[in-house]
Amino acid sequence: MITEQSPNSTEKLRKNAISPTREENFPEWYQQVIKAADLADNSPVRGCMVIRPWGYAIWELIQKYLDAMFKASGHKNAYFPLFIPLKYFEKEAEHVEGFAKECAIVTHTRLQLDGKGGLRPTSELDEPLIVRPTSETIIGEMFSKWVQSYRDLPIKINQWANVVRWEMRPRMFLRTTEFLWQEGHTVHATDEEAQKETLDMLECYRTFAENYMAMPVICGKKSDSEKFPGAASTFTLEAMMQDGKALQAGTSHFLGQNFAKSSHIKFINENGREEFGWTTSWGMTTRLIGGLIMVHSDDDGLVLPPLMAPTQIVILPIYREDSKHQVLEYCKTLRTELSQMSLGGEKLRIEIDDRDIRGGEKSWEWIKKGVPIRLEVGLRDIQSGLVCVYRRDKLPRDKKFIPHVQFISSAADMLADIQTVLFKRAQKYREEKSKHIDSQEEFIEFFEQKNSGFVYTHWSGSDAVEDKMKSEFGVTIRCLPFTEASPGSCIFTGNPSKQKVIWARSY
Amino acid sequence: MITEQSPNSTEKLRKNAISPTREENFPEWYQQVIKAADLADNSPVRGCMVIRPWGYAIWELIQKYLDAMFKASGHKNAYFPLFIPLKYFEKEAEHVEGFAKECAIVTHTRLQLDGKGGLRPTSELDEPLIVRPTSETIIGEMFSKWVQSYRDLPIKINQWANVVRWEMRPRMFLRTTEFLWQEGHTVHATDEEAQKETLDMLECYRTFAENYMAMPVICGKKSDSEKFPGAASTFTLEAMMQDGKALQAGTSHFLGQNFAKSSHIKFINENGREEFGWTTSWGMTTRLIGGLIMVHSDDDGLVLPPLMAPTQIVILPIYREDSKHQVLEYCKTLRTELSQMSLGGEKLRIEIDDRDIRGGEKSWEWIKKGVPIRLEVGLRDIQSGLVCVYRRDKLPRDKKFIPHVQFISSAADMLADIQTVLFKRAQKYREEKSKHIDSQEEFIEFFEQKNSGFVYTHWSGSDAVEDKMKSEFGVTIRCLPFTEASPGSCIFTGNPSKQKVIWARSY
Repeated sequence: MITEQSPNSTEKLRKNAISPTREENFPEWYQQVIKAADLADNSPVRGCMVIRPWGYAIWELIQKYLDAMFKASGHKNAYFPLFIPLKYFEKEAEHVEGFAKECAIVTHTRLQLDGKGGLRPTSELDEPLIVRPTSETIIGEMFSKWVQSYRDLPIKINQWANVVRWEMRPRMFLRTTEFLWQEGHTVHATDEEAQKETLDMLECYRTFAENYMAMPVICGKKSDSEKFPGAASTFTLEAMMQDGKALQAGTSHFLGQNFAKSSHIKFINENGREEFGWTTSWGMTTRLIGGLIMVHSDDDGLVLPPLMAPTQIVILPIYREDSKHQVLEYCKTLRTELSQMSLGGEKLRIEIDDRDIRGGEKSWEWIKKGVPIRLEVGLRDIQSGLVCVYRRDKLPRDKKFIPHVQFISSAADMLADIQTVLFKRAQKYREEKSKHIDSQEEFIEFFEQKNSGFVYTHWSGSDAVEDKMKSEFGVTIRCLPFTEASPGSCIFTGNPSKQKVIWARSY
Repeated sequence: MITEQSPNSTEKLRKNAISPTREENFPEWYQQVIKAADLADNSPVRGCMVIRPWGYAIWELIQKYLDAMFKASGHKNAYFPLFIPLKYFEKEAEHVEGFAKECAIVTHTRLQLDGKGGLRPTSELDEPLIVRPTSETIIGEMFSKWVQSYRDLPIKINQWANVVRWEMRPRMFLRTTEFLWQEGHTVHATDEEAQKETLDMLECYRTFAENYMAMPVICGKKSDSEKFPGAASTFTLEAMMQDGKALQAGTSHFLGQNFAKSSHIKFINENGREEFGWTTSWGMTTRLIGGLIMVHSDDDGLVLPPLMAPTQIVILPIYREDSKHQVLEYCKTLRTELSQMSLGGEKLRIEIDDRDIRGGEKSWEWIKKGVPIRLEVGLRDIQSGLVCVYRRDKLPRDKKFIPHVQFISSAADMLADIQTVLFKRAQKYREEKSKHIDSQEEFIEFFEQKNSGFVYTHWSGSDAVEDKMKSEFGVTIRCLPFTEASPGSCIFTGNPSKQKVIWARSY
């Protein structure tokens, strides 16, 4: 028997834990959710953040799941230097007019006393070193040594690392000067094999985003103006945030032989002839955590899909001194029982919070941290044999009393249900905020709204249209989705169009 | 029934896979082992190395085991910025005469075309940034914000990160400009609790070194002149390499309130009074991989203790075209059966190497990579029902034929036996090369030998003696071992001594 208590009448009057709300000021709400969940802090270094344990534990889950998927598909991890010689960038610079790259440049290698109690840099380097903004060039240099024969191929390498791109307008997780990421780099003997790898990794990312992060994504190709410079084609996953903007959740690039040519990655093929390799690269970053926040969280703080929650069920003991022992022992039993249950092939992650702080304050802390299930355990609950259960995807006071044995056996299912609810909720939101549009007027009208969303239109491939939409409405083509490949005519030029594209404002 | 084949008569004449041998030239042997096992490569950036997949997989195992131990003892991971403002170093500089710090200094944040096809740094920073040589200061800054009350304590944080110390004489894994490490930083409410943490982490490191890396270590305290500047006391683990030198495998520092004072880490205690926190820090680095190589490897290359082997058993199919299918299917069955067996609570790591290269070449590759067990599977073995098994801790041609079923059920035990053999072998080597010495003459005589080893002597605490031994013999006090705490008199000064110390040359 399950007793359900409906939200009490004061519920409607209650204030939210996060101020401002999403509706009032989305960007500020985002910062406040991060702060309230102890995900990250600003650091004394402009643009760099400190990822606190709760935020880092989410990154560790991202790493764990993705890494297992990479390894299962035959990739191996390696580590390349943090510093890249300036001349590696000069190769690239030759081809890029008006080159200006924001990055961290190391020019000296020694600190000395300046005689006034301070320090000054000495030992200037002959050639400055760049702190890697990506490892493409230095990995290419190593690949050119490792690849000699078709027998050495494919090479499928991944690196987990920190990278630096100097940011003028930093935002936690979304745009920071230093960020953490993984970068996959592969070399193949044929065009087809490299193209397959590019799409396989996109599919790996989609699986991860949708099945683990409960974040619905649209897979597609970037337009030429949005693709990675030097790539033959760039593929992307685009997710919709709760302000209708798009976030690029990951990219996978097919580099053709372009990169092999500039890095001299050559091999002797089965017929004894020298050929350039075919390469790919693909990456996901700590920005995903920003996406996770903006897709699921609400006006009470972070909401975590169970598979991404460092703690999936938190147990809050409530006792007076005379019932302390009994309540705590009961909570430990609950933890032991729950820890034997599994979700997604792994044991549940359970925590007891026995800190000596007020009960209400403690509950709200866990709400703001987004833990999927919260149990409050008092003497009365023990005596009645019921567990008082709160789900983070419901209203904060919306509790159920579930018989102990029944709760233990159904806890993993309840977590799986929360995972599904969050995915479906995000998908429904995206669908409601997406529109197929056939006229310019309607297009303009759509993007004049606040928190507008995604627009599908036909487009004939004109860069000029893209430039105009970007400068006038701040709207770009997010991708040419795989699902929209039937012909029509461009709503801007009237020219024939091979497929619809998605337009949106973006992060 | 087990058929054993003794090494054949040509064995004694065979050349070793690594040239030079340990005896001929230990430092060069070390480099050649790294190269032959594909552990790492030099990079285009002086002092920085590329950690190749086989080397990085060993680092991943180090991370996995240590991380689990840290978490089990209540530590949480977090991430702090790569860059540290120069002024953080100035605090330290005030107290250090003749300050000179080798590090990477970032002075500019933008690259621009120089008009001659090249690039030059622009956008100079007002204050240079230092690439972290350690995160002590920036973590201290954050702790000073996070710690307010005794309720916030203890704080037990660990970080996995890359750090940079400009190296004039780099050596792969042992001394590189950039290296990977973990740094633990904790704050406690009392002296006792912080001291306990310091020793608990030392014990955690000892367990890891001895039980996982099969590397016997001596735990003890550093002398004042060898301790970390600013620490109240530094504890260390010292291991002996196969050239008799010591390698410091990890350190754990009790920082007293020194560090809390310079970083303003204060809290309100239970009585409402403000106090400084008591802090610790502790770390292990990629240098451990250098130690692993120098403790176990032989003149045929790397030797890996099974728990540290990315692949524990490699299966090498040997076939002609007409037996290919049958041999490969049999190998896959073997892999499936072996993968269900466990060592140290984890499934065995098995690989089939079916690359199209010569059998002899292939076998030697795996010998040089140090894989603990190698199976060679041909049609004849399948028909006889015997598995041809080579152990890396025996001579290269020393094989045993073991009945299939018996091998499967005993494979994990055989790996455990190799793990034990390697530990005991290293321990025996260390004991043979260690000597208790009671006179200066004998001390000098000992260290005049090549590959000398460890010396235990009484020592009364004089820095002058340490300085003299260092400059004259290149010998330092490695530690004051916990096991040698009975009194005597110093062999150099004749003064009373509280304990014996260990002297050695070191990495």
